Amino acid sequence: MREVFQQELQEVQERLVEIASLVAISIENATRAFSESNVSLAEAVIADDDKIDELAISLDELAINILARQQPVARDLRIVVSALRISASLERMGDMAEHIAQLARYRFPEKVVPKTLRPTFAEMGQLDVAMARKLAELLRTEDVRLAEEIRNDDDKVDALHLSVFDTVLGEKWKGGAEDTVDATLASRYHERFADHAVSIAKKVQYLATGDWIPVED
Amino acid sequence: MREVFQQELQEVQERLVEIASLVAISIENATRAFSESNVSLAEAVIADDDKIDELAISLDELAINILARQQPVARDLRIVVSALRISASLERMGDMAEHIAQLARYRFPEKVVPKTLRPTFAEMGQLDVAMARKLAELLRTEDVRLAEEIRNDDDKVDALHLSVFDTVLGEKWKGGAEDTVDATLASRYHERFADHAVSIAKKVQYLATGDWIPVED
Repeated sequence: MREVFQQELQEVQERLVEIASLVAISIENATRAFSESNVSLAEAVIADDDKIDELAISLDELAINILARQQPVARDLRIVVSALRISASLERMGDMAEHIAQLARYRFPEKVVPKTLRPTFAEMGQLDVAMARKLAELLRTEDVRLAEEIRNDDDKVDALHLSVFDTVLGEKWKGGAEDTVDATLASRYHERFADHAVSIAKKVQYLATGDWIPVED
Repeated sequence: MREVFQQELQEVQERLVEIASLVAISIENATRAFSESNVSLAEAVIADDDKIDELAISLDELAINILARQQPVARDLRIVVSALRISASLERMGDMAEHIAQLARYRFPEKVVPKTLRPTFAEMGQLDVAMARKLAELLRTEDVRLAEEIRNDDDKVDALHLSVFDTVLGEKWKGGAEDTVDATLASRYHERFADHAVSIAKKVQYLATGDWIPVED
């Protein structure tokens, strides 16, 4: 029974890695679609989000199934409950990538934000992509140094998020209301994406270090 | 054992009702703080969010404890897992109320949005308050007609959310970048608040009608 349980936990872990890898591809494509006004790439991201949602639902069913059949307690129980929470956060990360892609599609053939802000969003996008890749790797290896890196990346995303507001509220801002709306939403989506990555990284870190996993951050 | 389990489920339900009631008070105060630029009320909402977070964490610990001790299966297991998900959504609703209050505090002593948009935000706020109250009542009574009402309210919130963008992107919009940012964020927060209410209402409805609870919407 114990062996079966370990195999099932491994299955859960592999599926989390798979979803995280898809999320990394989604945010990479969303970032490109956003910066290049690439509408077909944007549509691919939007379509891929359904796949991420399905995988998350399927993983949740597996986790609940494990709870029902294996009736884990103590740390094992926390691992399975954490998997449910991680899957929910990954699903939301996919939604954020989709929202960024939708912004690119709405404004097509125009670019989403004015030139002055494009380097900032390029950097935010790159950081989000790096975080998602590190997250997939963290979920695979449980190398907690990656959790630390993800936290550092998030600090950079937060600083860029604030700098977007400094720009659009600054005297030099020449953008219209549409540019301001797009910049506000895009920045918020990038920042939320990064927040979810940190939330997941913390859970994996707690598991890897054998600490009790807090149920919420 | 079964009787103890039923008592524990009732305890879970009562705590969910308690949190939902606090969320309803928070969004009501946030809406007032937003429309009246009431900074002390805004600060009360921000402080109250800590209380909501603590109650959600405590409820999650109880739910995990029940899983460990009672080892529920089938529908009982789904009820407990649903409680964990509902608590996460309620916690996010509290965050949205806090964010709305923060906008009011940042702009104090100025009002957050220009006159033209205030009736729209007043209506969104009222709908969010009504939804949160109905949610607390739905959690208490499992009267599924309330779930239907919550869904209808959400349609109205979505329409208002779109109308905010129509306004700020319309030719008559005279607001500056700050007004545009605030309107965009506030509208997004109200809309997300309503989304979470619908997500919870669906879960309660599934439980009440005895259907299998889907793990995600």
